Amino acid sequence: MTEKCSLSTLQRLPTYLHYLRGLAPTVACISATQIALALDMGEVQVRKDLAAVCHEGKPRIGYRTAALLRDLEQVLGYRNRTQAIIVGVGRLGQALLEYPGFADYGLNIVCGFDPRESLRAAGVGGKQVLSPDEIERVVREENIPIAILTVPADSAQGMADRLVSAGIRGIWNFTPTHIVVPEPVAVRHENLAASLAVLSRRMEENQG
Amino acid sequence: MTEKCSLSTLQRLPTYLHYLRGLAPTVACISATQIALALDMGEVQVRKDLAAVCHEGKPRIGYRTAALLRDLEQVLGYRNRTQAIIVGVGRLGQALLEYPGFADYGLNIVCGFDPRESLRAAGVGGKQVLSPDEIERVVREENIPIAILTVPADSAQGMADRLVSAGIRGIWNFTPTHIVVPEPVAVRHENLAASLAVLSRRMEENQG
Repeated sequence: MTEKCSLSTLQRLPTYLHYLRGLAPTVACISATQIALALDMGEVQVRKDLAAVCHEGKPRIGYRTAALLRDLEQVLGYRNRTQAIIVGVGRLGQALLEYPGFADYGLNIVCGFDPRESLRAAGVGGKQVLSPDEIERVVREENIPIAILTVPADSAQGMADRLVSAGIRGIWNFTPTHIVVPEPVAVRHENLAASLAVLSRRMEENQG
Repeated sequence: MTEKCSLSTLQRLPTYLHYLRGLAPTVACISATQIALALDMGEVQVRKDLAAVCHEGKPRIGYRTAALLRDLEQVLGYRNRTQAIIVGVGRLGQALLEYPGFADYGLNIVCGFDPRESLRAAGVGGKQVLSPDEIERVVREENIPIAILTVPADSAQGMADRLVSAGIRGIWNFTPTHIVVPEPVAVRHENLAASLAVLSRRMEENQG
């Protein structure tokens, strides 16, 4: 039904989806105008974003909420559950392993990996923590596409190489290290420093 | 010395800085070509980014590493330490409270706020955890500009309103809730769902 929306549209879709999921079930229809108002976003942008995703909008009425929800989930791939592992179960790895929100994004965290035996005995957030020795076996047997990388910065590239050899196709990198992987493996760097730089710039501009 | 670089350049600067900080102190000079190679980035882009930040580059030789480091830190504002508080000390709040990397970004986490008394007695990562009743007092007395928001999703907007009233000028929002604040307050939404959508898109494209 939908082809490819732009990358900037794609990044706004989770915001719409989160808003729609928070609506009362009695809200049968919703317009781009209402969504733009509620989220304090530009109406033209919201209208274009939604039109790229859902073809059932009607002038003056808007979208059936259920149809819009379905199409947003479809485009975001939340209807096909994707399996992922978390490599490195320090504080951040633990936070992510326990984070209930990933299920809403269609991501199923299978287990964590960490060398510390104390974590392995207890598990975290009801998930198993396994020895890094088992990464290759688990990735192969369960055909895991995504690894969330939360190891210490100086092990990041080494572990990335190992995950790629094991057959991982996408790495979500939460370490501060810029990692390099061969095609066709994809990387997304969750770069907190870059985010903070953008916030600081906006603060300067606004105070300016 | 430097004016405003573009937002996309700004977001790449922490990556260069992290790389330069990891070099041996004996590396006195470095060229855009070397950096581009090491980080697997386009040479033209690296050259333009660095030229926007540091005016001391020389053809064939490159930059003095120390000068480039200094100018990157300057543009990123890491030379003036900024104070921040963390509001909501669940798993993610704890991870951020303990994260040693913020100091490298010029961010000084003053304390956390959480209603749970058990956290307040013990503190987290050597930092105090205070009652939310004290937010207004601390923000005012210490003139804190930034709040890192890690409360549960359904308290996010209410807490944001309260932080703005208290005098906070920038909110780094780690909750999944899209929050709305009045000008001139700045918000940066750390949107994990949007990040995951970008990773998934790249994986699809790469698998063809």
